Amino acid sequence: MLTDIVLDAMGSEKGPEPEIRGAIAACRHYPVRIHLVGPEDRIAPALKQHLMGERLPIEVVHASEWISMDDKAAQAVRQKRDSSMRVGLKLVREGKARGFVTAGNTGAAMATAKMVLGTLQGVDRPALATILPTQTGSPCVMLDSGANVDSDPHNIVQFALMGQIYAQNVLGIPKPRIGLLSIGEEDSKGNALTRETLPLLRELNARNVVYQFLGNVEGRDLFNGRCDVVACDGFVGNVALKTTEGIAKLVSESLKQTLKATITSQVGALLSRKAFKNFKRRLDYSEYGGAPLLGVRGACIIGHGSSNETAILNAIRVASQFAQADVSRHIEAALAAANGTAAVEA
Amino acid sequence: MLTDIVLDAMGSEKGPEPEIRGAIAACRHYPVRIHLVGPEDRIAPALKQHLMGERLPIEVVHASEWISMDDKAAQAVRQKRDSSMRVGLKLVREGKARGFVTAGNTGAAMATAKMVLGTLQGVDRPALATILPTQTGSPCVMLDSGANVDSDPHNIVQFALMGQIYAQNVLGIPKPRIGLLSIGEEDSKGNALTRETLPLLRELNARNVVYQFLGNVEGRDLFNGRCDVVACDGFVGNVALKTTEGIAKLVSESLKQTLKATITSQVGALLSRKAFKNFKRRLDYSEYGGAPLLGVRGACIIGHGSSNETAILNAIRVASQFAQADVSRHIEAALAAANGTAAVEA
Repeated sequence: MLTDIVLDAMGSEKGPEPEIRGAIAACRHYPVRIHLVGPEDRIAPALKQHLMGERLPIEVVHASEWISMDDKAAQAVRQKRDSSMRVGLKLVREGKARGFVTAGNTGAAMATAKMVLGTLQGVDRPALATILPTQTGSPCVMLDSGANVDSDPHNIVQFALMGQIYAQNVLGIPKPRIGLLSIGEEDSKGNALTRETLPLLRELNARNVVYQFLGNVEGRDLFNGRCDVVACDGFVGNVALKTTEGIAKLVSESLKQTLKATITSQVGALLSRKAFKNFKRRLDYSEYGGAPLLGVRGACIIGHGSSNETAILNAIRVASQFAQADVSRHIEAALAAANGTAAVEA
Repeated sequence: MLTDIVLDAMGSEKGPEPEIRGAIAACRHYPVRIHLVGPEDRIAPALKQHLMGERLPIEVVHASEWISMDDKAAQAVRQKRDSSMRVGLKLVREGKARGFVTAGNTGAAMATAKMVLGTLQGVDRPALATILPTQTGSPCVMLDSGANVDSDPHNIVQFALMGQIYAQNVLGIPKPRIGLLSIGEEDSKGNALTRETLPLLRELNARNVVYQFLGNVEGRDLFNGRCDVVACDGFVGNVALKTTEGIAKLVSESLKQTLKATITSQVGALLSRKAFKNFKRRLDYSEYGGAPLLGVRGACIIGHGSSNETAILNAIRVASQFAQADVSRHIEAALAAANGTAAVEA
């Protein structure tokens, strides 16, 4: 049986090209049916051209509008009522598909998903999870990376639990190691929010609702492979994420300049180009497909605006895994267990 | 006339070796007199050996104890009453020196400096400023990077003003561009703290107490050269700083592995080694000497534990500039101007 996944055809900066290619690649690789949402007169001919007669389970769903990267999220969500995001998310709400993928405006995607899909039982606030690369090669799930600001301790606890479920079911880590993002490892380190959150997570760890809790961790632990999941307030998570992007760009630019300046011989340039390409691939976020919005009713994966065909393909794979593993049901069960109410899973 | 600077001889991980070499280099380069604080029986002979008969204005000041990196800050400050940090900072308090440099335990240095030196008039909370490298080559001063948590809007305003004074007087930027660290540029973006801080900084900008206020900036703006000063809460700043260290290490490790795996020929290895060295130098924080603790009575520069001779030399240079430019007096004047009270400078 095919898993139905909705793909916003107009999300990425170069959309719909990467989306169409990604949809085709996904259908060739995985048992999925893609609902490609966008202006039909533009999408259908382009799809036909790319398919070159090949028959694949891809359906074009018409949406007359789309939200661009420059649109202000709140305004666009309100005004563009027939946007590809909104039309696509409605298909998930109506049960016609089990997951939604977009590489579009993150703010608009989060707002539309929350509005159209609604939140899971027991979830106070959905959270955006970013999957970061680490030194050991295994990814680290950081959440919330920007869906909310001014979270309270209970919100952070829910973020940790949702991260645990995601790491278990999509990344295949049986007992994820969870850290609370702070500014020192001792329990006394941190701000009012982390100091109040810490005992709540310890208690859930003692009750085995959280499997492995490492206590406070620091910014560097996002990348050294110590944690599978790092929970934090969305303001802090977003600053950490954008700081990461900033330093990565600085390093990459510096390196390019240095290599250019230093290596002048043909052979050097060739070698460095190869090394640089490998290096970039290793740090490439697109392998993980995008950022899952956890806590809404259905799989919702938000990719980077610069997503290429591979990133789209991976986002579709992740959405499909998310749906197959019934992540939503597991989240509801974990939150019920945390609250001490009857588990939905029982 | 020589500027008297106290140097904690036992601060760095490899202390007192880098400190002794750094002190000697500083005395050769700049008009400074160094008060080298540590166990006399260990420091004096080592210094003598390094000087090889050269006469330089370096005095050894005895302190029987020192605080290590592994010491818990609060406990060490309380128990080691004759630590090199404490003895050294007392020399500044007593007016025998105008600046203090350590590459030791940051928490202990901040606590001891606040206790021994006290805060400047009008300063509610001293802040630790980190000087970050940027794409354009000019540094960016981020503060608070961890001296405080749970700051209020007025604290953040003071951080911005102290950062402005530092950038003007030590980095030589006449009208520093100041940003408020948030998660989006629009005024509506951010958390409760940034939304309350923003209008206060706008008002100071209108009154020309703050010269150039850019409004909200994002994590990536720490490294792209857009800002000279970025103000934030110490929890957020510390997470950003440690995230930066984490990603830099990840990138550097990945790169080393890739270069090793890819470049096998002798010539390739040679070229890459040179490129890599240049690249590291460009990102080297040690050029800026360390993190100034702003708001205490006197110059206090806290270097990285891994400081080498060059880092110590630069920290001494910065402490000396700090004292020469009378940064403390300018900070008091700026805070008085911000509060609308009579400026000390008048």
